[in-house]
Amino acid sequence: MLARGLAAAPGAAVGQVVFDADRAVEWSKIGQKVILARPETSPEDVAGMYASEGIVTARGGRTSHAAVVAVGMGKSCVVGASEILVDEERRVLTANGRTVREGDVISLDGGTGEVILDAVETVEGTLSQEVQELLVWADFYRRGGLGVRANADTPVDAQRAREMGAEGIGLVRTEHMFFAPDRIPIMREMIMAATPAAQQAALDRLQLFQRDDFVGIFQAMDGLPVTIRLLDPPLHEFLASQKEYKEMVEEKSRLEALAINPDRQRWLETVLAAVERLREANPMLGHRGCRLGITSPRIYGMQVTAIMEAACAAAEQGVRVEAEIMIPLTGTVGEMRETYEQTRKVADGVVARTGVPAKYSVGTMIEVPRAALIADQIAHHAEFFSFGTNDLTQMTFGYSRDDVAKFLPAYLQKGLLPHDPFSVLDQEGVGELIRIGIERGRKTRPDLKIGICGEHGGEASSVEFCYRVGMTYVSCSWPLIPGARLAAAQARIRDRVGDSRRAS
Amino acid sequence: MLARGLAAAPGAAVGQVVFDADRAVEWSKIGQKVILARPETSPEDVAGMYASEGIVTARGGRTSHAAVVAVGMGKSCVVGASEILVDEERRVLTANGRTVREGDVISLDGGTGEVILDAVETVEGTLSQEVQELLVWADFYRRGGLGVRANADTPVDAQRAREMGAEGIGLVRTEHMFFAPDRIPIMREMIMAATPAAQQAALDRLQLFQRDDFVGIFQAMDGLPVTIRLLDPPLHEFLASQKEYKEMVEEKSRLEALAINPDRQRWLETVLAAVERLREANPMLGHRGCRLGITSPRIYGMQVTAIMEAACAAAEQGVRVEAEIMIPLTGTVGEMRETYEQTRKVADGVVARTGVPAKYSVGTMIEVPRAALIADQIAHHAEFFSFGTNDLTQMTFGYSRDDVAKFLPAYLQKGLLPHDPFSVLDQEGVGELIRIGIERGRKTRPDLKIGICGEHGGEASSVEFCYRVGMTYVSCSWPLIPGARLAAAQARIRDRVGDSRRAS
Repeated sequence: MLARGLAAAPGAAVGQVVFDADRAVEWSKIGQKVILARPETSPEDVAGMYASEGIVTARGGRTSHAAVVAVGMGKSCVVGASEILVDEERRVLTANGRTVREGDVISLDGGTGEVILDAVETVEGTLSQEVQELLVWADFYRRGGLGVRANADTPVDAQRAREMGAEGIGLVRTEHMFFAPDRIPIMREMIMAATPAAQQAALDRLQLFQRDDFVGIFQAMDGLPVTIRLLDPPLHEFLASQKEYKEMVEEKSRLEALAINPDRQRWLETVLAAVERLREANPMLGHRGCRLGITSPRIYGMQVTAIMEAACAAAEQGVRVEAEIMIPLTGTVGEMRETYEQTRKVADGVVARTGVPAKYSVGTMIEVPRAALIADQIAHHAEFFSFGTNDLTQMTFGYSRDDVAKFLPAYLQKGLLPHDPFSVLDQEGVGELIRIGIERGRKTRPDLKIGICGEHGGEASSVEFCYRVGMTYVSCSWPLIPGARLAAAQARIRDRVGDSRRAS
Repeated sequence: MLARGLAAAPGAAVGQVVFDADRAVEWSKIGQKVILARPETSPEDVAGMYASEGIVTARGGRTSHAAVVAVGMGKSCVVGASEILVDEERRVLTANGRTVREGDVISLDGGTGEVILDAVETVEGTLSQEVQELLVWADFYRRGGLGVRANADTPVDAQRAREMGAEGIGLVRTEHMFFAPDRIPIMREMIMAATPAAQQAALDRLQLFQRDDFVGIFQAMDGLPVTIRLLDPPLHEFLASQKEYKEMVEEKSRLEALAINPDRQRWLETVLAAVERLREANPMLGHRGCRLGITSPRIYGMQVTAIMEAACAAAEQGVRVEAEIMIPLTGTVGEMRETYEQTRKVADGVVARTGVPAKYSVGTMIEVPRAALIADQIAHHAEFFSFGTNDLTQMTFGYSRDDVAKFLPAYLQKGLLPHDPFSVLDQEGVGELIRIGIERGRKTRPDLKIGICGEHGGEASSVEFCYRVGMTYVSCSWPLIPGARLAAAQARIRDRVGDSRRAS
């Protein structure tokens, strides 16, 4: 044991220690598991906290920023580990005479407050015999109620989700695939391409990667539906973080002042110009999702081709494929019609070319308030809906999730909000838009398949809400699936008890 | 005449020429009238276009970015003035042998395409005898329908608005007052204050400025209501633009590389740290409006004190004051209750202290989608509503106004949207939230006074919509008031014709 602090948020975490939020984000993007160690956290650290397995701070109590935010995120957290001295400058921490460098592995036990050197063996949420039996009962009582799917981006996660009882995948985020170290340079090439031909060449290389990813997921989910969302974030996210941008500006000024290394200066100038050209004042509300799909149709074209080639290849191997291609950020009927038609055209082209009749449908996220309000029109061109309650919460409240830590802790403390609306679905406001969206969507298409793929899909009170408003399924990350199965069963039972009471 | 280009958007404009968008924004913030001259415009220029009186480009046709965006904004614009050569680096333009430096005054005639050296005398939208008579008829037929107010931030604009027939002020934006050159240093002192006492000292100085501004506006609007919105933008907007930030980073790196001027290095470090501490990923959805009022109650306390001291001082001079204090960005009933009570407490304190019973009420902007959905609860603690349709449009569509130029021109061109929703109110989506907000608000408070203060308040089809949904008034900038009076009368007449048709 390295040190003991306060047990702020339960759960075990193992990962490489990092000393700032940006590094946490960078390393997690390339698939590393990290633990963020800070003297204390502040709102600037929130993105890094999301990216980490767990958080440990040297200062602060159970109501400190780190503790409050980690509980909200469901991350393991130890605070006030005062034996630890974090030296951000030298990128080491020392505790009781021992020194840990950035990248060294440590473990946290958020239930006891222990901080441990090296990786401790953890138990991966296996289900006891009793729990498994309970879940069988739950599934029995859940019949005719809510389905439970998983959010998963890789074949490994898809497999785990299936073992946990997932009845499909509700969300594959295709952008995560582009952050892998072998792909991000190609993604950047595509973004910075000077000619359409150069862009297409980069897209062709990305297509091969994407196809292989999808084949693995279809195989893992043989016989079950897989919802794949087309590219969602703005392109500048793939170029440089704010910190990387600053470092490039600093380096360029230094080289200029010293009049050295003109080649590097020119290269920095090119990259900085691209970053500045793509920069947005509010990226969350910017040029992303289907807006990108419409202004740069090659990107969605590449993705749809990759999905359908994978679907046809898997189907040919005997896998029962059920692909659901999902358009993000739709807000107008024009966008929906345009992307629906584009997608169908490309997909049917692949089916015709391969001669394999792989089964697929095209639907949309409902995550922009306007989409919920005009859901009757959207449903004319969408074969399924999935409520993206993370973004819908951001836009309905007008809260940027990356900035909310500047005021949300004060709101919770003063009782101005009952919960963090990113953890527990706000039934009153966001839920009202969901009710409106479902009612209007089914007016046009009575059998519309409707799910939720925000992080609320694994939270019990939110699951009950989804049942009550008539959703087809919830989707959540795989560790939350057993809880979601149970919550869905409880909602169904509560409803039936109500029915029989009303009947008597 | 300096050059002739294509007449892209009508109207006359006179101002100091600037060669980039940032300078346009900076200069306009301190009250200068500017004309933006560019080789051609791109999405990065949009904020600068908003800040300018008019736009002239050397390249491009009537469907170029500059032309499309300027028409949407209602700005005078000349494009394709190919005789003009813009030299951004040296900050001059040359045309037909003449050289114009940044800051020199030029004039545009967007109706003919003429670009003219020096200020041309323009006619300030005076109303002919015939138009004035028409407006008298309009007001007669408008009785019992929509009121027309003005958005105005200064006593001069308030006076002009009154001459144009404004029946009150629907929006005073208090933050504009802080950008004046004599005030912005105090504002920065307040933001960067190391102690509460230092912060309060800066606030006390700002309070005196604010009070004087408000006295002038109350005097100009003697007998008519004046709605004053408390501070709305995030604090970092007062510290540095992205461009200023980059310049500071560059300067610091240069000084460090050359190992000179350590004092300046330290100062830059302090300012950069403050900017980075306050930076937000999505400022539009960040720590602003009432969120700031709740976490930093001293700021709103200062503003409410200044408003009420001004109201009492004006009332004592015999001015009939009707102050409406407006809370921006409310989204939850908790925020509304908290800020309503804080405001009442401070305001009543001033009234008690001065012994002058100045009339005031406290209400809110409805600009966050969630506020419209829970308007019945909000109305328990708000004496009036004003729909902030600029922000409501941003959040309902999920469009950042500063970034929308990256895809909106393509949407308009492809027919995916019928109009720029920031120019013409989107009745289908944003309008649906307005209908819901009005219906629910009046369920709680049947006589609720309801207005609109977004830029849609001066656009004819939007004015008609406001009438149909039962608003009390529209508010727009003073040049648009005659048009709004006419549109409101037409809506009323159309409605009555419909009534009599239905009756017969």
